[in-house]
Amino acid sequence: MTADEARELDSADSLAFARDRFRLPEAVLYFDGNSLGALPAAAPAALADTAEGQWGQDLIASWNTHGWIDWPTRIAAKLAPIVGAKASELIIADSTSVCLFKLLAAAVRARPGRSTILTQQRDFPTDLYVAQGLAEMLGLNLKAVPAEEVISAIDGDTAVVTLTHVDYRSAAFHDMRAINDAAHTAGALTVWDLSHSAGAIEVDLNGAKSDLAVGCGYKYLNGGPGAPAFLFVAEHLQHQLEPPLQGWMGHADPFAFSDDYQAASGITRFLTGTPSILALAALEAGLDTFEDIAMREVEAKARALSDLFVAEVGARCGSEVRLASPRDASQRGSHVVFAHPQGYAVMQALIARGVIGDFRAPDLMRFGFAPLYNRFSEVVRAAEILEQILASREWDQPRFKQRAKVT
Amino acid sequence: MTADEARELDSADSLAFARDRFRLPEAVLYFDGNSLGALPAAAPAALADTAEGQWGQDLIASWNTHGWIDWPTRIAAKLAPIVGAKASELIIADSTSVCLFKLLAAAVRARPGRSTILTQQRDFPTDLYVAQGLAEMLGLNLKAVPAEEVISAIDGDTAVVTLTHVDYRSAAFHDMRAINDAAHTAGALTVWDLSHSAGAIEVDLNGAKSDLAVGCGYKYLNGGPGAPAFLFVAEHLQHQLEPPLQGWMGHADPFAFSDDYQAASGITRFLTGTPSILALAALEAGLDTFEDIAMREVEAKARALSDLFVAEVGARCGSEVRLASPRDASQRGSHVVFAHPQGYAVMQALIARGVIGDFRAPDLMRFGFAPLYNRFSEVVRAAEILEQILASREWDQPRFKQRAKVT
Repeated sequence: MTADEARELDSADSLAFARDRFRLPEAVLYFDGNSLGALPAAAPAALADTAEGQWGQDLIASWNTHGWIDWPTRIAAKLAPIVGAKASELIIADSTSVCLFKLLAAAVRARPGRSTILTQQRDFPTDLYVAQGLAEMLGLNLKAVPAEEVISAIDGDTAVVTLTHVDYRSAAFHDMRAINDAAHTAGALTVWDLSHSAGAIEVDLNGAKSDLAVGCGYKYLNGGPGAPAFLFVAEHLQHQLEPPLQGWMGHADPFAFSDDYQAASGITRFLTGTPSILALAALEAGLDTFEDIAMREVEAKARALSDLFVAEVGARCGSEVRLASPRDASQRGSHVVFAHPQGYAVMQALIARGVIGDFRAPDLMRFGFAPLYNRFSEVVRAAEILEQILASREWDQPRFKQRAKVT
Repeated sequence: MTADEARELDSADSLAFARDRFRLPEAVLYFDGNSLGALPAAAPAALADTAEGQWGQDLIASWNTHGWIDWPTRIAAKLAPIVGAKASELIIADSTSVCLFKLLAAAVRARPGRSTILTQQRDFPTDLYVAQGLAEMLGLNLKAVPAEEVISAIDGDTAVVTLTHVDYRSAAFHDMRAINDAAHTAGALTVWDLSHSAGAIEVDLNGAKSDLAVGCGYKYLNGGPGAPAFLFVAEHLQHQLEPPLQGWMGHADPFAFSDDYQAASGITRFLTGTPSILALAALEAGLDTFEDIAMREVEAKARALSDLFVAEVGARCGSEVRLASPRDASQRGSHVVFAHPQGYAVMQALIARGVIGDFRAPDLMRFGFAPLYNRFSEVVRAAEILEQILASREWDQPRFKQRAKVT
């Protein structure tokens, strides 16, 4: 595809207007919104207002006058249409890892007599680490099977099945409904990690009859580096589940300051400590970038962008790189990975040319497409630069092989 | 004391310069820095730079180029002189509740065969809730005794003693060294919550031979609403303790993305998920308000401020209020409480007059003195306004009796 043809696609893009909801540096083609979403244009003012106007001026009274105490639920409500849940089933809290610990612990406690937490091999590492830590503490069995064997591994000893919805490497995803059904048939609960799907593709937690879910605020949701995470608990389960990681924000009456814990009645029982209001302000600006945008449109553009990239790279780079994601876009999230034996160096050479993706060991170059701000013309230009770098072996320099601390 | 005499004390105050490190509204006398510290003057620019200059411009590369990955340890190092610890014994992470859960869980795991977590009745509620949740999950016994009976309650079944150093109500504090010694003699570990002492009075974790501690970033440390918390693990214990709430930020090599958890060797093994970089930026500005200030001086001014308030209220308000804190300032943290049967309404009347303290059930009016920004003249003026409100029964209005959601 020529640059002109790509610009025509941009002109016809019904989501093109959303690019103005972000501030992106001029010289950069940013394909790492799956790792850190771009800065929402409204975020700096939101932070300044929260810090100077609220904290600075109204000080402690802000918990009431600016409603800070309700921000974890008020802001979570904006996520409801993005993940197909009711507002009353969502809160913003903690980190993804801590949220996952809370829900896994609550889930196994709700299935006494069952001793297995089931997951897949090569799940997102922190998800595996959280499950390992919990299983070890409680003397449970953590069973990790290949992704395609999850359903057949569910049995009467399975307390909970926990999986990342979209794989952080390949972008392949699980059939949420099928796994929920299989788990429920066996009497087990499910906990989904939506970190690589929320904000990128259509997710319908309730339609798929999901029990529990967590997800990341700083990837496609554009909430800023290390943004608070979210968690989902289906309404019918809320009164049955008690996370053992309990704190005053989850108490039925926190400001009674009573000695004994009594869980709040709804989703707020899954809160623990005091949330960062500044981090919440930035996350709200991130969620607001989705305002009045249907996830069906987001998903359609995600597929169009990633399909274009797969086609262009295939046509331009031939067998030098190998697609390591599903070729069928309907089977992927919104990123694709290409393998190259010198993937790390090639990615550094791309970054030096202003094409920002990332690298995942051992040999994967990962490119994420954020439908709210990425353009078709950027995709074609990135494929063109990759073609040049491979043809010229521009990547074959010591400076591109020096591993950074964070990849 | 007259206003003129109080202003003379302000003129002679060797910490008076630190007031310029904050932005405080003109019309307010703020005595709630023990609940939410004031806005550091440097915080808005730090937030703007982190959001616009770093996140917005450098995007994902900021994890390396701006060293975000090291902020939890780099910023924690600034806390070392404030709490009497080595920089390598501190990290910033999560909320106080989550940090406490991690350390308590690690501590009981390190004392197998012992089944008691010992604490005091009327400890800070979230600390009790965290301990209750953990004890229930692990089938341990949570024993809460009156504060003065803690030492005698330590026995061979005690795995860990956990206490708030300075009581959030009375401001009375425990003898940290004596309790650590008693615990160690019995083979138990200690976990201190420094939320109401760090930044207010001298704390010497190492001098007192403390094992573990947590604390709040948003009170005297001025880190902003819901700022991340900190945790301390004495160097000699770091390799022995493994928090079961484990995540990728605590892994020995997080970016190897391996399936199996391997704890980092030092204090970073106590990290879990990705930290909020925006919240950390604000907390750094908060910790920087202590730059080049000795905690000995902070403590001395804390005592002078609170002593002056106790004396002025005593002289002006007589028996209408009852001091519910230790009268000897050397036995208090940096806040004082006065009881009044209509404490809630009196506090609301004070707030309406610009004197900001807070209320703690059932009848306590709490006034916190932040030595970096509170002035002696403010203290005298606040006592004068309290005197007027009590004399005129100004508090006896329905609008002052309507409880807000957050007190």
